[in-house]
Amino acid sequence: MVLVRNHLGDVLRRRRMRQGRTLREVSTQARVSLGYLSEIERGQKEASSELLASICEALELRLSEVLREVSEELIGVEAAELVPAGPRPVPSVAAERIESTRLDTHSEPVASAA
Amino acid sequence: MVLVRNHLGDVLRRRRMRQGRTLREVSTQARVSLGYLSEIERGQKEASSELLASICEALELRLSEVLREVSEELIGVEAAELVPAGPRPVPSVAAERIESTRLDTHSEPVASAA
Repeated sequence: MVLVRNHLGDVLRRRRMRQGRTLREVSTQARVSLGYLSEIERGQKEASSELLASICEALELRLSEVLREVSEELIGVEAAELVPAGPRPVPSVAAERIESTRLDTHSEPVASAA
Repeated sequence: MVLVRNHLGDVLRRRRMRQGRTLREVSTQARVSLGYLSEIERGQKEASSELLASICEALELRLSEVLREVSEELIGVEAAELVPAGPRPVPSVAAERIESTRLDTHSEPVASAA
């Protein structure tokens, strides 16, 4: 399940660090506790709309910009979910089975011949 | 203050109605109470990341798509906030004042002449 708060947290942290600002600075300016901001950045807490607006204001970011960045990050995640690592090997597993069946039928006569 | 939940609610409601589906249908499929879904659509409740993912799944929408739409809606709202209805009239109010000052200086002699 793709959770928005994880990616929102990533985007907020990335933007804060790009500005070279500390959690303390931004949390003070956004009037949120340092611990809570840290949890939001790590995707462990949901930010209310009011808090998100405050954090964006403290980071001098537009909400639209942040959401666009989250959306763009999600495109990649969703694509990976649609084509997960699992299904791809299926044809090759089938091919391996055919291969091993062939090897078996080939090896059997060899074994019986030996 | 621009609140994401209002615009997220708008987008979810719009998408549901475009599909011709009822609150009941979508709430059952997303395993959320009808009342709660309705409050989310009206921007009165925050949707957790899990619930948002569920609602998107019920609506067969990608989260990235929904957030992009919210982001696009916000661009308009933010532009309106940056250039609010207030400041624009300032020059015309100033112009009116100049105008009225002129009228006063014009009318005074007329009044004294009458």
